[in-house]
Amino acid sequence: MEMNEYEKYTAFSRDELLSKVEESMSEKRFSHVLGTQETAIQLAKRFGADVEKASIAGLVHDYAKERPNEEMIRVIVENHLGEDIIPFGNQIWHGIAGIVLIEKELGIRDSEILQAVYVHTTGSSNMSLIDKIIYVADYIEPHRHFEDVSEVRRLAEVDLDEVVKYETEHTLLRLIKEKRAIYPKTIETFNRYVVGMQ
Amino acid sequence: MEMNEYEKYTAFSRDELLSKVEESMSEKRFSHVLGTQETAIQLAKRFGADVEKASIAGLVHDYAKERPNEEMIRVIVENHLGEDIIPFGNQIWHGIAGIVLIEKELGIRDSEILQAVYVHTTGSSNMSLIDKIIYVADYIEPHRHFEDVSEVRRLAEVDLDEVVKYETEHTLLRLIKEKRAIYPKTIETFNRYVVGMQ
Repeated sequence: MEMNEYEKYTAFSRDELLSKVEESMSEKRFSHVLGTQETAIQLAKRFGADVEKASIAGLVHDYAKERPNEEMIRVIVENHLGEDIIPFGNQIWHGIAGIVLIEKELGIRDSEILQAVYVHTTGSSNMSLIDKIIYVADYIEPHRHFEDVSEVRRLAEVDLDEVVKYETEHTLLRLIKEKRAIYPKTIETFNRYVVGMQ
Repeated sequence: MEMNEYEKYTAFSRDELLSKVEESMSEKRFSHVLGTQETAIQLAKRFGADVEKASIAGLVHDYAKERPNEEMIRVIVENHLGEDIIPFGNQIWHGIAGIVLIEKELGIRDSEILQAVYVHTTGSSNMSLIDKIIYVADYIEPHRHFEDVSEVRRLAEVDLDEVVKYETEHTLLRLIKEKRAIYPKTIETFNRYVVGMQ
C-alpha cells in the first residue's frame, strides 16, 4: 500500500499514523490493533469493501482505549455525546468518544471510517459492510482466543453476517455471565441481526 | 379478604373481578394467574407490602395477554404508548398496553397496581417493592417449572432482590438462546439490579 493512498483519508503518512497509534497504547494492545487491521484488510478483499478504509479503521479503532477516564468524560461532555454513556465506562466510550479524538488528532474525516470505529464495540441496528468488517475483525483477529475461535474464523471466510450474529450473541452471553453492563445499542444489534427484527 | 377491601381499588367485587379475569383468558392461563396472585400475597406478607394491592396486581397482570394483536396495536397507537414497542409483540404489549384496558374495563386506578402490571415482564431500573413482588411471583408461582425453580422459591423466602437478579439474568439468557427479541427495559433492569449500575 502506497503512502498517498493512506493520505486520502488522513493528515498523515502510513508510517506517521502507525507511530501515532503505537504511541497511544501498550505494546499488547498495539499487537491486537495490527491483528485487527490485517484481518480487516482480508475481510475487505473477500467481501468487496474499500480496503484502505478498512485498513485505517482497523488501525485506529482502539486509539482512545487507554486515555484517562477524566479526559474521556471531558470529551463526552464538551461534545454533547450524551451523558447517559458515562456509567458504561471506557469499554463504551472509546468508540463513541474515540472518533472525536481520531478526527482531531489523526485528521481522519471519512464518515465511513469514523462510523465503523463508533460502533465497533456494540454494532448497531443498521451496519454498513465496513462496520461489520471492523466489528468482526476486532473479534477474530489472530490474538483473540475463545473456545470456538477457529470455527468462527472459518465462518468469516464465507459468511460475514453469520459472524456478526455469532459475535453479538456470544458477547451478550459473556456480559451476562460476568454481570457486566450491557449498552442498549448491543441489544439493537441483537434484535436486528440475530432475531431479524426490522 | 372482604369484598370491600377489593372495592377500595376496583369498581368490582372480588367475585366480579375474578369472573372478568377468568373470562378474558384460557383455563391454563387463569391457573397461572391464580398461582401468581397467591404467590404475590405470600411475598407481600413476607416483605411487608400492601397485601390487597399485591393480590389485585397478581390477579390482573395478564389480563390483556390473549387480546387480538389488532386490538392491542390500536390501544398502543390511540394512547400514544410509543410505536417502537410494536415489533416486540404481545409479550411486551400486554403489560404496557394492558394497564389501559385494566383501568378502563376493571376500573383499577391505583398507580402502584398499574405500575406493577406495566413492568411485570421486563422489570425497570427503579422497581418498587410491589413491582418486584409481581415480577417475581409471575416467575416462581406453583405452575412454573424450570431447572432451579425449587431453589429460587427458597431464595424468595429470604431475599426478594436476589430473585429479581436471578430472574433478570436467566430471562435474558433464555431470550438470547432462543433468539427472541429483547426489550430495552429488560437491559435497564439488568444494568441496575444485576450489575449495580446507578
